[in-house]
Amino acid sequence: MSLLVVGSVAFDSLETPYGKAEEVLGGSASFFSVTASYFAPVKVVAVVGEDFGEEQLRVFTSRRIDIEGLERARGKTFRWRGQYDGDMSEARTLETQLNVFERFAPKVPASYLGSEFVFLGNIDPPLQLHVRRQLPRVRLVACDTMNYWIKGKPEELKKTLAEVDMLVINEAEARMLSGTGNLRRAAAAIQRLGPRIVVLKRGEYGACLFKDGTIFFAPGYPLEEVRDPTGAGDSFAGGFMGHLARSGDLADGGLRRALVYGSVMASFAVEEFGLGRLLRLTPEDIETRFNEFKSMTHFDV
Amino acid sequence: MSLLVVGSVAFDSLETPYGKAEEVLGGSASFFSVTASYFAPVKVVAVVGEDFGEEQLRVFTSRRIDIEGLERARGKTFRWRGQYDGDMSEARTLETQLNVFERFAPKVPASYLGSEFVFLGNIDPPLQLHVRRQLPRVRLVACDTMNYWIKGKPEELKKTLAEVDMLVINEAEARMLSGTGNLRRAAAAIQRLGPRIVVLKRGEYGACLFKDGTIFFAPGYPLEEVRDPTGAGDSFAGGFMGHLARSGDLADGGLRRALVYGSVMASFAVEEFGLGRLLRLTPEDIETRFNEFKSMTHFDV
Repeated sequence: MSLLVVGSVAFDSLETPYGKAEEVLGGSASFFSVTASYFAPVKVVAVVGEDFGEEQLRVFTSRRIDIEGLERARGKTFRWRGQYDGDMSEARTLETQLNVFERFAPKVPASYLGSEFVFLGNIDPPLQLHVRRQLPRVRLVACDTMNYWIKGKPEELKKTLAEVDMLVINEAEARMLSGTGNLRRAAAAIQRLGPRIVVLKRGEYGACLFKDGTIFFAPGYPLEEVRDPTGAGDSFAGGFMGHLARSGDLADGGLRRALVYGSVMASFAVEEFGLGRLLRLTPEDIETRFNEFKSMTHFDV
Repeated sequence: MSLLVVGSVAFDSLETPYGKAEEVLGGSASFFSVTASYFAPVKVVAVVGEDFGEEQLRVFTSRRIDIEGLERARGKTFRWRGQYDGDMSEARTLETQLNVFERFAPKVPASYLGSEFVFLGNIDPPLQLHVRRQLPRVRLVACDTMNYWIKGKPEELKKTLAEVDMLVINEAEARMLSGTGNLRRAAAAIQRLGPRIVVLKRGEYGACLFKDGTIFFAPGYPLEEVRDPTGAGDSFAGGFMGHLARSGDLADGGLRRALVYGSVMASFAVEEFGLGRLLRLTPEDIETRFNEFKSMTHFDV
């Protein structure tokens, strides 16, 4: 089944304790779609500028990602510059140039309307809602958000949340959104806003999924080196939604496996700068790491 | 099989966002032995003062804990006063009165010498080593330590570590001891100091176990309310070692189940002040929560 993502496509410049990268392809839609492309056909809605060249387009086409919805606008592509220090748990934004992203009005091509799974990447909540409403018959709509929208557009965000099935959010943002520090209560408060499934990303501590009063935990993959955390969250979402779109399985077992595939893909994302590692994966790499998660977490009663 | 613990017995006075407690029974040996007593016969080596009354002794005897090694010395029992703020992840020590603990020279009674499992609670490393050497034929010796000893007595601590099978330590202390922020490398560095099994406690994020190049993760139990974190680490160790002593199973599967029982017991410890919840448990409470851990972590490939 096919999977639609709306989000950002960006040129990222970044520095981590492991090195520097200048203007590498990034953005939520890029990380999500490259990751999810290992699982299911992906369609992208995003905007790029006139400086977006053949080389960058080939990243998408080489992964057979449908770019009919990748609009080319006058001006420059969105740019982000950031730095990670210490344990790299948080990015310090040094510069944001919205460029063509400033006037982004996402258009869903007619050929995308049959998409069964939708991921609303971390963009302005009214834009997320606008896309969501163009796809009334999808099987599952998930969205991401961030502290910037939680603080800056709480009412608009709530309107979006009221119309999605699942929220994928990091733990600190879940606490901010719910106003409670307790994980279980934070998830319950978010469920009352709309999403019946809440997925919390906990960085190196993994992720957990709340649904119908049950909780499922997956640890973070214990890498010896995390070189660049950029895109980890979107790669997590790409693995999660990709597996759902591939399997069509929305029952408890399917959601659990999806959470683990999300954790697997996030762990690959951070191994190298930008999309580096994600563009060199094989299905065997993914299955091997998935099985490692099984062996790292299972015990017999 | 029987289990010996050496550690502190204290009167704790503490304040958390949920309330206050004055001079309640605490200390590493108390939390450990009460917890482990649900699994196996426990023998305590510790010291108390003249102010330690019948009521406190009954806490041990009611759990059939062997107190032949509980020395009564002239003076007052060890006292600790602390406070937990915010997310309660760390205690702020307001006052420590070592009292009889200052001259503690642990003596292992002859009747304890057949103990097969030993836990060296968080005390001065040379005292841990002194006890360890009196028990040359035990099946497994585990020890705990803390930042105070890691900074203050690094060489003595290394001598103790060289003669134990397992270290149970919190994540921040593992980083301090190993000099590396990376979990996997920190565990490997600690293994090179002696313990072939390294167990890292990660607070609300659970715990993980490193052995022979494999890793096993258990999440923290998602409580709605943590009222008093005091003793969580020693209760974790009590559940872990208690299960090992009960089962005698030191193979991979046994260690995994032990880590989960440790997490189960730590989760009960923090539900109420002091030993409150730990003294009212039933075997069914413990098994029910153990099974919840299974359902929160398992997935099918």
